[in-house]
Amino acid sequence: MQHFSVIIPAGGRGKRMNAEVPKQFLPLMDKPVVMRTLEKFHSFDNRIKIILVLPENQISYWENLCRTYHFTIPHRITAGGSERFFSVKNALQMVDTELVAVHDAVRPLVSLASIERVFAAAEKYGAAVPVMPVNESMRKITDNANRAVDRAEYCIVQTPQAFHTKILSDAYSQEFNESFTDDASVVESIGRTIALTEGNRENIKITTPADLHLAEILWREQVFTEKNCNFAKKTI
Amino acid sequence: MQHFSVIIPAGGRGKRMNAEVPKQFLPLMDKPVVMRTLEKFHSFDNRIKIILVLPENQISYWENLCRTYHFTIPHRITAGGSERFFSVKNALQMVDTELVAVHDAVRPLVSLASIERVFAAAEKYGAAVPVMPVNESMRKITDNANRAVDRAEYCIVQTPQAFHTKILSDAYSQEFNESFTDDASVVESIGRTIALTEGNRENIKITTPADLHLAEILWREQVFTEKNCNFAKKTI
Repeated sequence: MQHFSVIIPAGGRGKRMNAEVPKQFLPLMDKPVVMRTLEKFHSFDNRIKIILVLPENQISYWENLCRTYHFTIPHRITAGGSERFFSVKNALQMVDTELVAVHDAVRPLVSLASIERVFAAAEKYGAAVPVMPVNESMRKITDNANRAVDRAEYCIVQTPQAFHTKILSDAYSQEFNESFTDDASVVESIGRTIALTEGNRENIKITTPADLHLAEILWREQVFTEKNCNFAKKTI
Repeated sequence: MQHFSVIIPAGGRGKRMNAEVPKQFLPLMDKPVVMRTLEKFHSFDNRIKIILVLPENQISYWENLCRTYHFTIPHRITAGGSERFFSVKNALQMVDTELVAVHDAVRPLVSLASIERVFAAAEKYGAAVPVMPVNESMRKITDNANRAVDRAEYCIVQTPQAFHTKILSDAYSQEFNESFTDDASVVESIGRTIALTEGNRENIKITTPADLHLAEILWREQVFTEKNCNFAKKTI
């Protein structure tokens, strides 16, 4: 049995789609963002099982893209549900490894070291997420007021979020709840604690054209930094 | 009497300085970041009184820069203290307008609309800060645990933070406290409430080389957007 799987939700039923190319297919250094994301996990471990979740109406578009770009990273495709929750739940049925991660399609800049840390912590503690400190002042908003909070008490959550597959499956067997903001919150709601690992600052979510520009700059720097990294060859 | 002043702290005693050029002097579109910041406030209101707070050992460097760049935006210079708190407190003694804002030197991308909104709210409510929603999942860290929090209950605080001068002076007459993270928190600690206004997403704090690259992209977009903006001519 292989050790790792990663589920990559790249949009649900496409309800927010318009005529434009969805952001996960926009090119980052001449290749669609989502391909960069898949390549990253393949670099981490070339035996990792990748499950890409796409809106049903984008699957053939994706298959064409793969042909156009001669994209050969092994992955399976499944159709997304009406909410991210249902997309992950469906994809989980295809997972047969001990550990599974869930990762945003539009975060190609996750570092190999971040992936390694979060899988290692998940193996040890059952559930883990990569986090970064908040680096601006924050306020908490209540009904008719707001107050300063100590940003040191908070952290920003990135992906991949990693779990024992059994734990994530148990968590996803519960009813859907609007308060689920990410996979960790689904797991937490069944009483599990979440381990925190160090993320990487450049692991931004690409959601605007400016993000895409920034991502290209960060990508060049990261390629340079990771050239000598051995994670791809390492067995954890 | 003029209506607005803005205090721009650009480093204290320079204790964290090393041999490199401090980030506020790095060029953004061929001109030091802090000059871009001053220009922005001058565009908003060409009668605004600008007080730039510099580390004592950088004042002559700055004066040389002004000559080199033929920089003629009117401003006064004062030396910074050991903490940002003391820098603002000192600068406040030079303020003789009814309203005063405090703005990070490394945020040249504040929009004219953001400045207008925060001054208008400060005039009405006494104290106001521009905020933006948090757009990633967050967790709160407690002693040996952490938990998901609803990011909709929080906001990220930007600058300029604007106040009735009397209120800000009263707040700064208290003792320094390590828990002061920004000017709003100083004002809040004397029992004042803070009004929130809409900030602008591109108003990033430039703290890394990648930020500077991003800032250049955002700068070009903003110049395009604000070309037809009338705030500079408008009397509030």
